Amino acid sequence: MNRDMTRRDFVRWMGMGAAGIAAASGTRLAAAEKPGRKPNFLIIFCDDMGYGDLGCYGHPTICTPHIDRMAAEGQKWTDFYVGASVCTPSRAALLTGRLPVRSGMCSDVRRVLFPNSAGGLPRGEVTIAEALKPQGYATGCIGKWHLGHLPEYLPTNNGFDSYFGVPYSNDMDRVGGSGRQAFFDPKVEYWNVPLLRNEQIIERPADQNTLTKRYTEEAVRFIEQNKDRPFFLYLAHTMVHVPLFVSDDFRGKSPRGLYGDAVEEIDWSVGRVLETLRREGLAENTLVVFTSDNGPWLEFDQHGGSAGLLREGKGCTYEGGMREPCIMWWPGMIKPAVVHDLGTTMDLLPTILRLAGAEVPADRVLDGFDLRPVLSGAGRSPRDTVFYYRGVRLHAVRKGPYKAHFITQSAYGKDQPVTHDPPLLYHLGHDPSEKHDIAKAHPDVIAEIRKEVERHRSTLVPAEDQLAPVIKKN
Amino acid sequence: MNRDMTRRDFVRWMGMGAAGIAAASGTRLAAAEKPGRKPNFLIIFCDDMGYGDLGCYGHPTICTPHIDRMAAEGQKWTDFYVGASVCTPSRAALLTGRLPVRSGMCSDVRRVLFPNSAGGLPRGEVTIAEALKPQGYATGCIGKWHLGHLPEYLPTNNGFDSYFGVPYSNDMDRVGGSGRQAFFDPKVEYWNVPLLRNEQIIERPADQNTLTKRYTEEAVRFIEQNKDRPFFLYLAHTMVHVPLFVSDDFRGKSPRGLYGDAVEEIDWSVGRVLETLRREGLAENTLVVFTSDNGPWLEFDQHGGSAGLLREGKGCTYEGGMREPCIMWWPGMIKPAVVHDLGTTMDLLPTILRLAGAEVPADRVLDGFDLRPVLSGAGRSPRDTVFYYRGVRLHAVRKGPYKAHFITQSAYGKDQPVTHDPPLLYHLGHDPSEKHDIAKAHPDVIAEIRKEVERHRSTLVPAEDQLAPVIKKN
Repeated sequence: MNRDMTRRDFVRWMGMGAAGIAAASGTRLAAAEKPGRKPNFLIIFCDDMGYGDLGCYGHPTICTPHIDRMAAEGQKWTDFYVGASVCTPSRAALLTGRLPVRSGMCSDVRRVLFPNSAGGLPRGEVTIAEALKPQGYATGCIGKWHLGHLPEYLPTNNGFDSYFGVPYSNDMDRVGGSGRQAFFDPKVEYWNVPLLRNEQIIERPADQNTLTKRYTEEAVRFIEQNKDRPFFLYLAHTMVHVPLFVSDDFRGKSPRGLYGDAVEEIDWSVGRVLETLRREGLAENTLVVFTSDNGPWLEFDQHGGSAGLLREGKGCTYEGGMREPCIMWWPGMIKPAVVHDLGTTMDLLPTILRLAGAEVPADRVLDGFDLRPVLSGAGRSPRDTVFYYRGVRLHAVRKGPYKAHFITQSAYGKDQPVTHDPPLLYHLGHDPSEKHDIAKAHPDVIAEIRKEVERHRSTLVPAEDQLAPVIKKN
Repeated sequence: MNRDMTRRDFVRWMGMGAAGIAAASGTRLAAAEKPGRKPNFLIIFCDDMGYGDLGCYGHPTICTPHIDRMAAEGQKWTDFYVGASVCTPSRAALLTGRLPVRSGMCSDVRRVLFPNSAGGLPRGEVTIAEALKPQGYATGCIGKWHLGHLPEYLPTNNGFDSYFGVPYSNDMDRVGGSGRQAFFDPKVEYWNVPLLRNEQIIERPADQNTLTKRYTEEAVRFIEQNKDRPFFLYLAHTMVHVPLFVSDDFRGKSPRGLYGDAVEEIDWSVGRVLETLRREGLAENTLVVFTSDNGPWLEFDQHGGSAGLLREGKGCTYEGGMREPCIMWWPGMIKPAVVHDLGTTMDLLPTILRLAGAEVPADRVLDGFDLRPVLSGAGRSPRDTVFYYRGVRLHAVRKGPYKAHFITQSAYGKDQPVTHDPPLLYHLGHDPSEKHDIAKAHPDVIAEIRKEVERHRSTLVPAEDQLAPVIKKN
């Protein structure tokens, strides 16, 4: 996109509306033919951040002035979802625009990948980075990956030119500390997680105290080095997943304690990144998306975050597990607003690819929708449904304001799933905290949702389970 | 205050800091000697609005663009409290700057005034309006009063030049409808509440559908009529207390249902009032405070609000009952910020009186602190403690980030109060949802809080119970 393009041009260009989008579906969009530079894309993805953990989402004691400013200048989405309530499948959903059940990146055996896992994102999946490469994009991945750590699964084999980060969760490779207490007084040496540069381990254990800072410096460098070509940067913070670590500049600063310190260091990081974009004259040519992979890990008491008024957190299919803060920023291009339309991380792939004039994979089912009409302010989100999976099981479905729970299960308890027939039904507009089951009064809504389930199930084909296989010892 | 006064002058004038405030305590402040016009004051007081019910406090489906803008232009307070968790004592605290236990406006017999109550705010109490009258202020009261409805207790006998509103709660004088269902499908004729102009009933039952709109029109007219003299307007909405009513323009508009419609009509009202101030050139000479009397009435399901991540709601001494949204607005004068310092409605009296150059009553114990240093950005709040009363009993005390619960009791259940010794102790910074009792680890903090309780108790003198007496039938 040309920097001289006016906002009106942009709105016309982006805001083709649902009909136009349908017509253009699968075809090369106008963007590709436009002269001038294509837009940059930057996704800032946090780990285990709750819906209520930012100032602009109502937290009273976590101070996030940079993110709040980003929200005021851009769009704050209130009904934005992830593809799963735990890490690995959620990340697979974001990068492929597909529900994890399609790629095999979810399982009934294990919920995420572990250090002894043998699987990863299948080669046949197309990531945002892979789709952007033919368009001349520089692509960088910084931070937590968690889509497979054997060499063939690393970011550099999934469309990214470079990688710097910890390949899985920072609570893995545990080698020290005592029980849960290790998390409440965490030391770097308790977790022998590796830090990688591309495919090489450069530090082990990774000094987690400085991860947020180093990720940020890497991001700033990536932007500076690629300012003359279009780029896609996926900056996936290791924080605020337990064990919590912060650099000295942030330790003991937040009224919210260590968890707040960690969020506030990410807030600083956001400020640094956006400031870099401004300084380099790239702000008006870059879409920045800020969100997180799943809800707060409530089991970790004050070391876990808060879902605000939403029910439950990470690991379950209540709203607190899968609805996330989301801010879209693109000064002069995105219409500043609080957006109540539905969106998900899976919508980023088609939205980004179309903005870049790249092909959207046409040989597979995508679960993402093109959100350009919402970004430009020209129209409504084409998304009307959200599917809430736990592993390979569909637990709940949202359609419009209604959400039906066919199965419920506590996030991490040993309890078995409970099947509901009729499903529990909540009106998420009237009752965002999912307190009042209104199934009896709305058999028509339930019938409509059951039809959505049927339509959805008809698109599923079996995928090989990537999370179950473990590395065989010699 | 002169409109030409620069912001720097103002900061110097307001921001005397804690030492200066102490020195000036009880004396006439500089403001009174200043040439030019004194500032106006406008308090917008909602009813039963929860901590989480505004967009800028994180609600996902209630749209409050005018209040959000007010917050962005002014100060959004995160730790602002009321003087009681129910209506009558909370309003007494705001208008007198004193805990209700000092004025007799709380009781162990009844929690609020009812239509058959014989009592009201004692003549000896000094309201903000009464203290401002000698300074030449026009004073208006619009909306819910609930501090006594016999003629001697009405606003016009408590320092207000005029009154327009419903003298007590809108769920009183019930004459129709069936049980709780009446609240979930409310009709105006179910509640035979009167609408007063000064001391005369002008409508009965009040048409509650149009109350918010009519209060707003009255407020706009009051501002227009008093634009050439300093004024104090106390605009106390009847909404969003059940039964919920809205005008046709707002019915069915909010994704949050009727409760959201009612909040959104108040948001419209805030926009109208602030726009009037701007249009009349008064914005930079008017302090506007927006808050509510107590937390959400959770018993009323979707017709009650949400305290966000705070625990419980109206009627109890957990945070959800007594911490409220609070926005302070005064363009060009107040330093825009998110404020985490402690404040309460009782601080408004000394703050306002000092800004007006009026005498602060010196013959009685005040529970309010002068918040001018926070408003100007020149210093911290002088307040370090919050006392949480239920009726005449002190249930909990906050000191800094710590809160000790000596007594807990459910908001409206039939259960007896439970005494805790040692008290439950929560760190409200780390744990704003009051989940993790840390009393065992902090005996020192508890000892310090016990000293605060002793100091506080030494200032109490018995007051005549104003809520117990009922009108004797002839």
